[in-house]
Amino acid sequence: MSKSEWYADFVKLGYAPKKDDIVCLFRFEPSSGIADSEAMGRIASESSVGTWTTLAALPKMLPKLKAYAFWNDRNFCKVAYPGALFEPASITGFLAGPAGNIFGMKAIKNLRLIDVEFPRHYVRQFRGPHFGIDAIKKIFKKKSGPITAVVPKPKLGYTATEHAEKVAYAVWRGGIDCVKDDENLTNQAFNKFGERVNRLSRVRDRVEKETGEVKEAFINVTAPDLRELEKRIKVVHEHGFRYFMLDVVISGFAAVQTASNIAHDYEMAIHAHRAMHAMFTRNRRHGMSMLLLAKLMRLIGVDQLHIGTAIGKLEGSRSEIIATKDMVLSREVGEIPMSRLHQDWNGIKPMLPVASGGLHPGLLPHVFDIYKTTDMVVQVGGGTQGHPMGIEAGAKAVVQAIEAYHHKVNLYEYGETHMELKEALKKWGSVRPR
Amino acid sequence: MSKSEWYADFVKLGYAPKKDDIVCLFRFEPSSGIADSEAMGRIASESSVGTWTTLAALPKMLPKLKAYAFWNDRNFCKVAYPGALFEPASITGFLAGPAGNIFGMKAIKNLRLIDVEFPRHYVRQFRGPHFGIDAIKKIFKKKSGPITAVVPKPKLGYTATEHAEKVAYAVWRGGIDCVKDDENLTNQAFNKFGERVNRLSRVRDRVEKETGEVKEAFINVTAPDLRELEKRIKVVHEHGFRYFMLDVVISGFAAVQTASNIAHDYEMAIHAHRAMHAMFTRNRRHGMSMLLLAKLMRLIGVDQLHIGTAIGKLEGSRSEIIATKDMVLSREVGEIPMSRLHQDWNGIKPMLPVASGGLHPGLLPHVFDIYKTTDMVVQVGGGTQGHPMGIEAGAKAVVQAIEAYHHKVNLYEYGETHMELKEALKKWGSVRPR
Repeated sequence: MSKSEWYADFVKLGYAPKKDDIVCLFRFEPSSGIADSEAMGRIASESSVGTWTTLAALPKMLPKLKAYAFWNDRNFCKVAYPGALFEPASITGFLAGPAGNIFGMKAIKNLRLIDVEFPRHYVRQFRGPHFGIDAIKKIFKKKSGPITAVVPKPKLGYTATEHAEKVAYAVWRGGIDCVKDDENLTNQAFNKFGERVNRLSRVRDRVEKETGEVKEAFINVTAPDLRELEKRIKVVHEHGFRYFMLDVVISGFAAVQTASNIAHDYEMAIHAHRAMHAMFTRNRRHGMSMLLLAKLMRLIGVDQLHIGTAIGKLEGSRSEIIATKDMVLSREVGEIPMSRLHQDWNGIKPMLPVASGGLHPGLLPHVFDIYKTTDMVVQVGGGTQGHPMGIEAGAKAVVQAIEAYHHKVNLYEYGETHMELKEALKKWGSVRPR
Repeated sequence: MSKSEWYADFVKLGYAPKKDDIVCLFRFEPSSGIADSEAMGRIASESSVGTWTTLAALPKMLPKLKAYAFWNDRNFCKVAYPGALFEPASITGFLAGPAGNIFGMKAIKNLRLIDVEFPRHYVRQFRGPHFGIDAIKKIFKKKSGPITAVVPKPKLGYTATEHAEKVAYAVWRGGIDCVKDDENLTNQAFNKFGERVNRLSRVRDRVEKETGEVKEAFINVTAPDLRELEKRIKVVHEHGFRYFMLDVVISGFAAVQTASNIAHDYEMAIHAHRAMHAMFTRNRRHGMSMLLLAKLMRLIGVDQLHIGTAIGKLEGSRSEIIATKDMVLSREVGEIPMSRLHQDWNGIKPMLPVASGGLHPGLLPHVFDIYKTTDMVVQVGGGTQGHPMGIEAGAKAVVQAIEAYHHKVNLYEYGETHMELKEALKKWGSVRPR
């Protein structure tokens, strides 16, 4: 270590975090020639108040703001940050520390922020979801989950009229609760946002009358800027929808907080698509865990978020998905060594997990078994519209698969008396797309 | 390939992209058992209009919206997207395709979006920087760069009064153009945003009077949500600053577009900090390149962005930094095989690159040599305030190192007649921090 460095000041093994400290769990790999303790010193220093060289003078406050790497086991370490370091109620303010520059330091080859334990006082600076798990009862008037949704496929290509009258109508008629825009459908020339909302609301009114069921849509309000985002949410609200959908990673944390504020004002729920997350959550040695991303979204106020299926076309291990699902659905969860920290949610509502990506009726019982609950949102896209008998039959097959699961009947047996399910099983069986 | 898949429809080797197509360069690694062409089909399909299974019906528009993987060399491929796929003038809309779900597909082990060639009509949907490179002349009234900035260190700990009266005053007096907030300084209890802006503006007025020079500050307006972001930019504007600073990655693309709109309205420049980028730009096999992130920021309207130093404490190879620097500063750049695509900027102003992170006077000539220009922003933090004679002397040493470079004089030789530079060289020499 060079004489002009002071990274070592930020390592204090055995330090006991204070009640107001925010604790981060990292996995780290030092670059060659850097000792573990030097790497930990850099992580704690650069993410709090340090820099690479000694300084001519230090502010009086400094000792109260220093973060400490206080625990270490192989490639894992924990760092405690004093609450006073961060602007209150600001996830962007928080991330600039433990999720910032340290990921680019030459001295650290790989770094992953696995989880953060937010203390009770910090959690209460946020509002969390307006509905969260309560959406099942409060919006859909159902006793239990899942909430079902179908994504019109192909992702893009339908006009607003086709989207609403051809696809959404059949999906809703088939017994599905929600129609969901795909992540890349926003306001294209061939399917304008305003027209889609308008057409969908009219079809919704018609099907609600015909079926007596509550029908919703997760309409994508993702917009180039925040004023346009506000405008789009308002349009959705004015057309009587209780939900809107947002690409939360692509839009960014400031957009999510903005959307949450509006959702609370309008008493709406946010369906969050995570497109782009895998750029930084996928590599187990670098970036941020999907679990932590989900935690931040619940804190800010997302009501439901895609967290993976374990068996569909998108990556995500079964154990990580279970750890994440328990975290978003619980009021308090315990630590899983090297994977998850303890978290007391201090009254913040549970957020619903969404399983989506390459699902079809034959996979649904497996999804529920993995999740060990049906308090969730299940989404099917191609697995509805690829049905040989058409979209409405595809929707029915999904509903029948869920019924079979609730009745504890084997899918193929249930298919004997339910034609749509039978046809779906004939096409896809229990294939796991990749 | 399963019979119900149609990924192969999205591969058309030898296809010549149309004038309005957006072309993406990817590096990809298929998972085991997946052929290159299957992987490319998935990339083009899932990022445009495909899904994992054949569908009962397809919209008429579909053929006009399909993307094609049209070129392939080892692990690299290019995909052409029809312009009509995307909402106009929306980076969030664009990213949901080529930067979305495909990064999480099981069939692809690693995927990196290296560059995107935006056609001329697409580029003109954006306003780009309001000042960009013109800031050197228009804001600072200088004939040539660099613009110099100093970051108060430690990152956090000074009160608003200390920040302005102790650090900023000395920095500006020492001849530096700008004082920059660090990425994690926003609105902490011990250094409130409003008070910092107010104090800095008063000190700026005083030093401008004393020195006759233009003094600016890159004050961090990063905020939890849109309304607060707008409010903070307005406060900075009302206090007579021509710049504001934003943590662009943490705030997110919708926030950056919002900030750009306001910057154009108020005739201000955006200094962009890239904290968090390394979560997805660092791994050469996955995520997005720093070059592309910089391109997106220029398109949206950032005036200057941190892109790395190659020799400081933060990662980034020399060749990537040069390729990026040329791209942000040019009106048109050529292709570098496997690294960069051709780009015609069609009148969008050049954006200034910012070199920052572990710099000190002894490293500055090397930075200019790497950048092959002084049309840039150079920032020094610890390398000013770690100066044994104090902050003002540290600032002077930076200015002297730049003078030496402009006069083509060796630093050590220049140090013989410039005490502050000499002392800086005595402490740091040309050490490269890591």
